[in-house]
Amino acid sequence: MNNFSFYNPTRIFFGEGQIAKLTQAIPADARVLVLYGGGSIKKNGVYQQVSQALAEHTWFEFAGIEPNPSFHTLCQAVDMVKQEQIDFLLAVGGGSVADGTKFVAAAACFEGDPWDILAHRAKIQQALPLGVVLTLPATGSESNPNGVITNYQTQDKLSFFSAALYPQFAILDPTTTYSLPQKQVANGIVDAFVHTVEQYVTCAHGAQIQDAMAEGILRTLIQEGPKALHNPQDYQVRANVMWAATMALNGLIGCGVPQDWATHMIGHELTALHGLDHGQTLAVVLPAEWQVMREQKAQKLLQYGERVWGIQTGDEQTRIDQSIAKTRAFFESLGVATRLSDYGISADAIDAMVEALEKHGMTALGEQRNIDLPKSRAILQAAL
Amino acid sequence: MNNFSFYNPTRIFFGEGQIAKLTQAIPADARVLVLYGGGSIKKNGVYQQVSQALAEHTWFEFAGIEPNPSFHTLCQAVDMVKQEQIDFLLAVGGGSVADGTKFVAAAACFEGDPWDILAHRAKIQQALPLGVVLTLPATGSESNPNGVITNYQTQDKLSFFSAALYPQFAILDPTTTYSLPQKQVANGIVDAFVHTVEQYVTCAHGAQIQDAMAEGILRTLIQEGPKALHNPQDYQVRANVMWAATMALNGLIGCGVPQDWATHMIGHELTALHGLDHGQTLAVVLPAEWQVMREQKAQKLLQYGERVWGIQTGDEQTRIDQSIAKTRAFFESLGVATRLSDYGISADAIDAMVEALEKHGMTALGEQRNIDLPKSRAILQAAL
Repeated sequence: MNNFSFYNPTRIFFGEGQIAKLTQAIPADARVLVLYGGGSIKKNGVYQQVSQALAEHTWFEFAGIEPNPSFHTLCQAVDMVKQEQIDFLLAVGGGSVADGTKFVAAAACFEGDPWDILAHRAKIQQALPLGVVLTLPATGSESNPNGVITNYQTQDKLSFFSAALYPQFAILDPTTTYSLPQKQVANGIVDAFVHTVEQYVTCAHGAQIQDAMAEGILRTLIQEGPKALHNPQDYQVRANVMWAATMALNGLIGCGVPQDWATHMIGHELTALHGLDHGQTLAVVLPAEWQVMREQKAQKLLQYGERVWGIQTGDEQTRIDQSIAKTRAFFESLGVATRLSDYGISADAIDAMVEALEKHGMTALGEQRNIDLPKSRAILQAAL
Repeated sequence: MNNFSFYNPTRIFFGEGQIAKLTQAIPADARVLVLYGGGSIKKNGVYQQVSQALAEHTWFEFAGIEPNPSFHTLCQAVDMVKQEQIDFLLAVGGGSVADGTKFVAAAACFEGDPWDILAHRAKIQQALPLGVVLTLPATGSESNPNGVITNYQTQDKLSFFSAALYPQFAILDPTTTYSLPQKQVANGIVDAFVHTVEQYVTCAHGAQIQDAMAEGILRTLIQEGPKALHNPQDYQVRANVMWAATMALNGLIGCGVPQDWATHMIGHELTALHGLDHGQTLAVVLPAEWQVMREQKAQKLLQYGERVWGIQTGDEQTRIDQSIAKTRAFFESLGVATRLSDYGISADAIDAMVEALEKHGMTALGEQRNIDLPKSRAILQAAL
């Protein structure tokens, strides 16, 4: 186990009816901006619950944050924050709304051009306080200090983080996920799954608690994920999936272990250049990355195969093949295709993706920082 | 899964050499009181590391906090806090020192008689900030808001808690545990193990992540615990045991699940009346409690047997017998005896223990609050 620091001050309110906790969770004298996406929260009753909980607060709203939140849209929210002297942000939606709200929280307090936060990783010294009402289990953004923003003009999808960006609270009511489209549920399950393996299928490290937690999250997603699609109003299923997604990226399973994240970084270029959903990019890149990096990851792929899928027989290469195949089949069973060709992307698109990786400095990815551009190219080729 | 709130703001610094982080972790202008136990930290180099890290700070020390920290000893520390105008407390030691320091933190800010905090569960509105340098993995006190204090005059061992008592930080350096006496290591492993099962071997609840985490902690303690005794300077072993003990009681595995704690409450009377170590009391009471409550706990005992011990064959009653027997054998293998008679306690001591439970209001224990005094008596009889 490597040395580590761990800190996560986000207060979780979990369960049916917890949106009412907003009344106490946000200071009574705050000027609140509620940020949300395309308006699904008005159809599923979440907007109404939030309105009711904030009946005595002074609040404003900013709608229209996109699935991959846009830098330019968020800059409009920053203008509104300044104009209305907002001092508390409330994200109501999925990871994109949470990520976008974090960016607004940082940009509103930033001296200079907020684009520097993304393009030059300018240090975020302070941010407005924020909370999250989560309606889509997937990214873990509701209790971590990270975000990803897209500039659609330059086709850049870039991440940022700051300890100042931990949400003060996150409200997770599994019933808010009953009405999600199946595609979003499936993408969310893939996202949580890949967050987990990015911190688990790396190289051996001996940190047993972290491994056991990761394996528990993966088994839960495998067992409950399909049920969430087939029986959308099963509370226990939704609750397990929701908590699994949060636990996958609240920092705990990554304590003191090597971390990969190559699948995410390569996937970001796929979204920026070809518009794939984030979950789709992960389902495409992950099996290909494991195929290319199978030697380095052999020990953990075998452990993953055995403890998560029960693969115990056959020689090592066969078991690794099975581990990768089972993973691919799981994503496909959720309705998420796992080949570039499934999305109409062919070999002649690879050059541009590799160039984008180079432009963004993604030249040494993976847990050993040895996924260079030729290896990324090989991964994209294996994903065709 | 039941509704829950979760909040844990303790910052963890984990790994060799992390005691040096004290320099930044405690405000430079603080007046610090360092609290510790019997002086073992002066023999194993921890005191020296703390002194070095605090070289530029203004600090005082209070030694002599007992293994079951004494109310009257801690009142002396409270006097010192007031006299020296202390505004930050640093616990250096195991769970008893951490618990004692929390009590000092609360009592120093308490209006009225601090005994009320324990005897009448008076609400703790505020407390001095505190940090912990942990040298004994066991209680989890380093990152939770709970404590247990003993009044040796009245033979009361009583618990307290307050959200104001989360340590600001906890430093966990596994090398500080190399020199621990075997008995303390063994007691600590039993303590962490029983913390875990108090939140896991209850009744079925469907919270899969919490179960998987609990099972991972238990398997880690079973696998690594004996190694910690036989090869005390194996860093990875010590690191896994240390992190397991913290994760066992930082609140996470208890999120949204029923909790038992009868073994702890009955065990406290054994310490108060007969002076057994805390870990010893748990090793005695747990197998007896499971025996008496085996019907109510059947489903989770079977799950525990299968997932933690690999018990898969035989009828249900046989598997439950095996699960209990394996647990008892594990404690014994660590050198912790599991029968009252092993400690010279016979049936004629039971009346006084049941009376003490009654005095302390412990008349409805367990995850279903149905362990009344006759059931506690039956548990103590089964523990003979």
